[in-house]
Amino acid sequence: MARYALGLDYGTNSVRAILVDTANGKEVATSVWGYAHGHEGVILAKDPNLARQHPADYVKGAETTIRKVLATAKRRLKGFSAEQVIGIGVDTTGSSPLPVDRNGRPLAFDKQFARDPAAMAWLWKDHTSVEEAVEITALAAKTRPQYLAKCSGTYSSEWFFSKILHCRRTSPKVFDAAHTWVEIADWIPAMLTGTEAPEKLIACVCAAGHKAMYNDAWGGYPDARFLSKLDPELGKLRARLKDKAYAIDTAVGRLTAAWAKRTGLPVSIPVAAGAFDAHLGAVGAGIAPGTLAKIIGTSSCDMMVVRNNRKLPDIPGLCGIVDGSILPGYFGLEAGQSAVGDIFNWFVNYIQPGGKSAGSHQALTRAAAKLQPGESGLLALDWNHGNRTILVDQKLTGLLLGQTLYTTGAEIYRALIEASAFGALTIFNRFEEYGVKVRQVVNCGGIAEKNPLVMQIYADVTGRPMKISRSAQTCALGAAMAGAVVAGRKAGGHATFAAAQKAMCGLKPKVYKSNAAAGKVYKDLYALYSQLHDAFGTVAWKGNLHNVMKKLLDIRSRARK
Amino acid sequence: MARYALGLDYGTNSVRAILVDTANGKEVATSVWGYAHGHEGVILAKDPNLARQHPADYVKGAETTIRKVLATAKRRLKGFSAEQVIGIGVDTTGSSPLPVDRNGRPLAFDKQFARDPAAMAWLWKDHTSVEEAVEITALAAKTRPQYLAKCSGTYSSEWFFSKILHCRRTSPKVFDAAHTWVEIADWIPAMLTGTEAPEKLIACVCAAGHKAMYNDAWGGYPDARFLSKLDPELGKLRARLKDKAYAIDTAVGRLTAAWAKRTGLPVSIPVAAGAFDAHLGAVGAGIAPGTLAKIIGTSSCDMMVVRNNRKLPDIPGLCGIVDGSILPGYFGLEAGQSAVGDIFNWFVNYIQPGGKSAGSHQALTRAAAKLQPGESGLLALDWNHGNRTILVDQKLTGLLLGQTLYTTGAEIYRALIEASAFGALTIFNRFEEYGVKVRQVVNCGGIAEKNPLVMQIYADVTGRPMKISRSAQTCALGAAMAGAVVAGRKAGGHATFAAAQKAMCGLKPKVYKSNAAAGKVYKDLYALYSQLHDAFGTVAWKGNLHNVMKKLLDIRSRARK
Repeated sequence: MARYALGLDYGTNSVRAILVDTANGKEVATSVWGYAHGHEGVILAKDPNLARQHPADYVKGAETTIRKVLATAKRRLKGFSAEQVIGIGVDTTGSSPLPVDRNGRPLAFDKQFARDPAAMAWLWKDHTSVEEAVEITALAAKTRPQYLAKCSGTYSSEWFFSKILHCRRTSPKVFDAAHTWVEIADWIPAMLTGTEAPEKLIACVCAAGHKAMYNDAWGGYPDARFLSKLDPELGKLRARLKDKAYAIDTAVGRLTAAWAKRTGLPVSIPVAAGAFDAHLGAVGAGIAPGTLAKIIGTSSCDMMVVRNNRKLPDIPGLCGIVDGSILPGYFGLEAGQSAVGDIFNWFVNYIQPGGKSAGSHQALTRAAAKLQPGESGLLALDWNHGNRTILVDQKLTGLLLGQTLYTTGAEIYRALIEASAFGALTIFNRFEEYGVKVRQVVNCGGIAEKNPLVMQIYADVTGRPMKISRSAQTCALGAAMAGAVVAGRKAGGHATFAAAQKAMCGLKPKVYKSNAAAGKVYKDLYALYSQLHDAFGTVAWKGNLHNVMKKLLDIRSRARK
Repeated sequence: MARYALGLDYGTNSVRAILVDTANGKEVATSVWGYAHGHEGVILAKDPNLARQHPADYVKGAETTIRKVLATAKRRLKGFSAEQVIGIGVDTTGSSPLPVDRNGRPLAFDKQFARDPAAMAWLWKDHTSVEEAVEITALAAKTRPQYLAKCSGTYSSEWFFSKILHCRRTSPKVFDAAHTWVEIADWIPAMLTGTEAPEKLIACVCAAGHKAMYNDAWGGYPDARFLSKLDPELGKLRARLKDKAYAIDTAVGRLTAAWAKRTGLPVSIPVAAGAFDAHLGAVGAGIAPGTLAKIIGTSSCDMMVVRNNRKLPDIPGLCGIVDGSILPGYFGLEAGQSAVGDIFNWFVNYIQPGGKSAGSHQALTRAAAKLQPGESGLLALDWNHGNRTILVDQKLTGLLLGQTLYTTGAEIYRALIEASAFGALTIFNRFEEYGVKVRQVVNCGGIAEKNPLVMQIYADVTGRPMKISRSAQTCALGAAMAGAVVAGRKAGGHATFAAAQKAMCGLKPKVYKSNAAAGKVYKDLYALYSQLHDAFGTVAWKGNLHNVMKKLLDIRSRARK
């Protein structure tokens, strides 16, 4: 009899549940629910940097999608019974910390805070905490450089402590009411298993390690003295964060009777520790040593793993190197581009070359595909949303060069695709410069699935075959695999992630192979891209252009005041 | 009784005739005729660099427009008689050399050459002679540096000898059949006065000085030994070019009886030596020492004059410093931007942001006018068609920097306008750095007339009031003024250009004054523009970005092969 694992994938705008056959990875049913609060699930405010989420949507989302996915399975599969579901895994966005009370209950569930954005989940893309990030980075650089060495040298405004410190300063009522703060990647598994209480709560090493400077080498989270220097109250919070965080092979508990009733799932099936979407996406894409899993969406995440018994240097520019953050027993290496699909979407939606119909992705891709590499004379930098890897600089912006009086929209569109490929190659090169060999690239996400031109250009620019994950939902698949592993082999799951990947992951038959003639042109173009990249992106560069984009942003800020 | 002067303005696509009251500059009648040959008057070929014009259109054009303009005047002015027309002036495009036979008759009038583009006028924008220009520049740099010092240091592919040498090499039949070559600015006045024969032909100093290295200091045109080194046949041609060229206060002759009959004009009225459109445009705009006449069209010409008894240094980057090329008795200084309106047109016609209706000049201007200086965070270089002044480099291309995920088409449109203003300021600064004070700027051309946003941004960026010429047709007006001057005061014209300008030129009442707050922001932006300008435009700049655009063009050429 078939066994199924359930993957819950909490995205920015919606949550998805899938039910996967543990024997072969077949995704037998899926359901999606758009969050009810805010604008497409995101609570916005006058401050364009603010982005929050109401935790009530996490509860409603689990209930709605699980009931629906089970109903779909019953309709589709002869003889299906919910009893065949053996485990649950969860992936979420992050860092998305949530203030909770002494019982682990979100403050936003209290009437007095129900409409206060500060009491909700601070969504990954909330950028209100820029000043606090600068402060944390400066203090760590001075007194705890080791904290920064594993996370790209800069503590981000998107991360755990920046957001908490900003809340302390701007919403003291919420801060005072909060007993502690929990990543939603931890809170959702805890909710399903009744382990929300801070003394029971299990934190995942993915969030702790990548976003909260957690490392076993220094006893887990940053020490209380360090945090106290930022704010004494932050120092006090340290005692409420546990010293140990866990990988996805850990079950945080078992599904409660209440949640079993609410969803129709069997009571007591295990729920795995959570992880971020890109990390479980990498698992679902079949990540292994030498395999770079490239998750391409609005931005990209370029994930690798290295056995944790190997000596690995700090790799500058990576968003993090965390033991166990992707697969247990491996360092998880995260890199990425701040914008990929978002740049193409910008050109189509904000510039609308030729108007709405002529300027669709389809039309532009068709026209761009007819061009030869180098034919447009254009070169772009893929920095419209800053540069995550390898420059780690949000204050960078886009650049387009080479326009004549005859440059077309399709030529620009292709230049933007090429720029994103050059950005990807820069990441591959950074891994290899530090001894992490990229032997295979597996892409996933909508663009990888739907745009052959993008994949072909990636192959031509990087000189590597581009493979595509078989699953269109690798994050949810990875989550389900975690559910299968915590369920274990005897229950019909898997003993290890290696076994789970062997059974449940796969590639599409189509592989995009690099073309030698195109590669030759792109080699020349990449040399020019690198020149611009270093000129505008690095302080060390002798030409002193590094400040141009930053000064423009300063002028812009003043103009908008 | 009123007296009228006739201005003939030979443009790229059409010829215009205007009839101007010499007492007050009133333009009493105008007529336009589009050339019959080629595509909108330009003969094209598979080679996109080729652009020629059939000289038959010059003949037909004069006849058609003059008859029409007289008819209009008769209809409009009570008691008007053609006898009141006292003189003719002519402006044309250039350098546009035309091969002629021993009698000064264009070869293209011969049946055997009637359809041979090499036998037609080589239009100013014909770029077939790039290699010859490089060769001439190299030889002059080595053996006659003085030839280059007055014309920006580089001999252009658009100019007289480059084109003749290219004809010698690629169309030897035409070259051999040609007795000599004549600029159309010389040939058209000669045609009207029957002085086409090479021994009678009067060359204008405007064309000779700016495009053919003519200077009284070395006896006129380049010496035969120099030309022979390029090609012995070119050396032989030198003997057929006269040693003296003339300013527009010289009458090349009087209207022939045949042309009087053909047009209805009085026989024997004087015809002034020709000049290029921008130069007579500057005259029509009221150019004088301290007044920069800015003729803004698809490109811009920024013209100044300095008394020729003043010691004037060579000013690097100017397209030319020629005694008498604009006004007799003054050095004519020509600078300009390779593309102004052409860049705005590119964005509207080739990119079509938001489609054809949303992306019109009117709609984009309206939206761009709502933005504050600096608000977009964008910065552009105005080099989509290369840089004429001060870099004199056709192998430069456009650049746009500062794009985010929210950048709009209107923001880019405004950034392009601002870039063209920064380019203009760079020219003003170059004049002043070399002691030529810019005390007043008078703009003319369609953009100056029709786009208040462009004029306001020019005022804000340059910190100077922007004035607009009263006439919408300053080139044709300037030509008519030359007709009035060669006719003389007694005939009802003017004794000098100063007198003619006083009577016939004027400004519009609207003056665009610079705004101090905007100027402050633009000062910061201009500093960044200058940084990019020098980084990408000058070899001396330490950062080694100078070759980026050139290498891209090389890659493009290879890709298009």
